[in-house]
Amino acid sequence: MHHLAERILKGEVRATARAMRLVDDRMPDATTVLKDLFPHTGKAWVLGVTGNPGSGKSTLCDRLIEHFRKQNKRVGVIAVDPSSPYSGGAILGDRIRMTRHATDDGVFIRSVATRGHLGGLSRSARDLVRILDAHGSDVVIVETVGVGQDELEITRTAHTTLVVMAPGLGDDVQAIKAGLMECADAFAVNKADREGADATVRDLQLMIALGSETMIAAGKQRGHAVHSEQDGTVENASRSRTMWTPPIVKCVALRGEGIAELVTELEKHHAWVTTTEEGRARRHARLAEELRETLREALIDAATENLGPAIDEAVRAVEDKTRDPYSATEDLVAKFRSTK
Amino acid sequence: MHHLAERILKGEVRATARAMRLVDDRMPDATTVLKDLFPHTGKAWVLGVTGNPGSGKSTLCDRLIEHFRKQNKRVGVIAVDPSSPYSGGAILGDRIRMTRHATDDGVFIRSVATRGHLGGLSRSARDLVRILDAHGSDVVIVETVGVGQDELEITRTAHTTLVVMAPGLGDDVQAIKAGLMECADAFAVNKADREGADATVRDLQLMIALGSETMIAAGKQRGHAVHSEQDGTVENASRSRTMWTPPIVKCVALRGEGIAELVTELEKHHAWVTTTEEGRARRHARLAEELRETLREALIDAATENLGPAIDEAVRAVEDKTRDPYSATEDLVAKFRSTK
Repeated sequence: MHHLAERILKGEVRATARAMRLVDDRMPDATTVLKDLFPHTGKAWVLGVTGNPGSGKSTLCDRLIEHFRKQNKRVGVIAVDPSSPYSGGAILGDRIRMTRHATDDGVFIRSVATRGHLGGLSRSARDLVRILDAHGSDVVIVETVGVGQDELEITRTAHTTLVVMAPGLGDDVQAIKAGLMECADAFAVNKADREGADATVRDLQLMIALGSETMIAAGKQRGHAVHSEQDGTVENASRSRTMWTPPIVKCVALRGEGIAELVTELEKHHAWVTTTEEGRARRHARLAEELRETLREALIDAATENLGPAIDEAVRAVEDKTRDPYSATEDLVAKFRSTK
Repeated sequence: MHHLAERILKGEVRATARAMRLVDDRMPDATTVLKDLFPHTGKAWVLGVTGNPGSGKSTLCDRLIEHFRKQNKRVGVIAVDPSSPYSGGAILGDRIRMTRHATDDGVFIRSVATRGHLGGLSRSARDLVRILDAHGSDVVIVETVGVGQDELEITRTAHTTLVVMAPGLGDDVQAIKAGLMECADAFAVNKADREGADATVRDLQLMIALGSETMIAAGKQRGHAVHSEQDGTVENASRSRTMWTPPIVKCVALRGEGIAELVTELEKHHAWVTTTEEGRARRHARLAEELRETLREALIDAATENLGPAIDEAVRAVEDKTRDPYSATEDLVAKFRSTK
C-alpha cells in the first residue's frame, strides 16, 4: 500500500491534503493512492449543495457543518465555487482554507479551482470525495455554484443534492435552469424571512407537481435524455422521479433557523438512496456513468500517448484535404487498436 | 459518391435539409455524406455570432443576412439558440425555420436543438457548417447564446467570432464571462442609441488593453490553459492575441445602423485569419482540437460496441468493491486493444 494511503486511513490531515494535491495535479501517484483507498470508501454521506450566487449557499453550508459537528460527525467540504469565501484562493490551486471551523480538526475544507472541462472537474471532485471518505469523514459536502454544465455534473457525484434558493434574487423558479431542477433531491428556500419566500415555495411546489412532464420536456430541450429516450429510459427516469418527491424547507441560514428541519429531510433522502431498490438503481446508473467517463478519458490518453506523431500527420492530411476528418479518425482508431 | 452528396453539391435544398437531419439523428449515412462532401468544403466564411439574451443578437443576424444578400452572397444560418426566433421549434428537432428571408432561396436557415453534451453540440455544428459550405453558402452564420461551455465550444468552429453586447443589460463588461472575452474576434455594442453605450465601449477597450494579463489570469481560472501552461503555450496564446486586436463597433441593429462598418471589421478579421501565418496557425490548432475531440468520441463508441457486457461486469465489480474503478478502467482499455 502506498504510504500516503496508509496515513490517510489513519486520518492524518497532512497526508490527506498531500493526496488531494496529487489529484489536482494529475500526478501518476494519485491513481495508486486512489486504488489503495477505494476498498475503504463508501462510508461517507456525500451531500451536494448548489445554488446561484446570492442564495446564501455558503452560509447554509456553514450551518450544516455546525449541525453535523454537534452530532460529533466528522465533516469534509469540497468547495468548487470560485466565489465561495472558503475558496478565495482557489485560483491559486492548492490552498486549504478554513473559516471559523479552522481550529476544529473534525472539519476538513478543501477548495478546488474550476479547472478543466469535458468532465475533468467532476472526475477530480469524485476523487477528492473518495479521499475525504477514506480519511474518515462521516459527511462530505460538495459545494458548487449552480451555473454551467460542469457544476451540474458534479452534483451527480453526491448521494443527496440540495438546491438552495432565495426569494427576490431575480432567479425565480421559472428562470431556474431545467438542469438544476432535475438534479434536486431537496430545496432550501433560504432567507425565508424576506418577502416573496412563500411565493417561491408555491412556485417550487407547482414545478414539482408538474413533475414528470416538465422533466421530460426539460430533458429533451437539454438533449440530455434524447439518446436514452430511444431505449425508453426517459420513461424510467420520470417514473423513478415519482418515487422521491423533493421536499422544500424554508430556512434563515444567517440565524440558524430551519437547519435541523432541513437536515431531517436530507437524511430521509439519504435513507431512500441507500436502502430502497430505486435508490440502489440510481447509484448503479451513476457508477456506470462514471466508468464510462473514466474510460473515455483513459482511451484518449492512451491513444495520444500511443499514436503520437500519427495524430499530427492526420491533422496535416485533413488540412491539405488529402484525407477527410471522418476517415482520418477511423484510421487512428484502427491504428491504436492494432499497435502496442 | 452518396446520392445526397451529389445533390447537395448541385445546391439542392431538399438534399441539404435531408443530410442535416441525418447528422442530427447521428445516422451512419451522415458520415458517408460528410466524407464525400469534405473535399468540396472550405470555401465558406464561417461567422460565429454570440451574445447574451437581450443583446439583440438575432436582430443583428437578420441585418447581417440582409447585408450579405445585397452583395449577392448565399447565406447559411445555424441557430443554436433555443430562444432565437428562428428556432422556436428547435425542441422539435428537425424544423427549418425561415423569418422574412423565407422566400429567399439564397438563405438557408437551420435551427439546432441544444442536445448532447461533452462536445456533441460543437461536433454537430461543425458538420452542419460543412454541409452548408458544400451546398454553396458563401457565408455561414453560426448563432449561439453566450452562456455555457457548450456554446463557447461552438464559437471555435468559426473563422470569425462576433460577440454582441448591449448597454444596460446588467451584464456589464466586468460580468462578461472570461470565456466569452477569450473567443471574441470583434465586439458589437448594439442598441448604441441607449444610455451607457459609450461606457460599455470604454470598458471593453480597457479590457482589451489589459489584454494578455487578463487572458492568462482568466485562462488559469477557467483552467482551460492550465495544462498548456506547462509547455509554454499560454505564453504563445497571449502573444498571438496581440497580433489581432478585437475591434469594437457601435450599432443599432433595429434601424440597420452601423452594420456596414461592422461587416468591414469582420471582413478584416477574415482576411487576417485566412492570409496571415498567425491566422493559419490558429486554424491548424483548431483542426487539431477537432480531430482530438472526434477521436475521443470514436474511441468510446468503438469501445462500447466492442466491450459490451465487459463494461457492465466492470460496473458490478466496482459496485461489489471487488475491483476499484481505476484498475477496472485500465482493464477495459487493455481488453479493447487486444480484441478485434
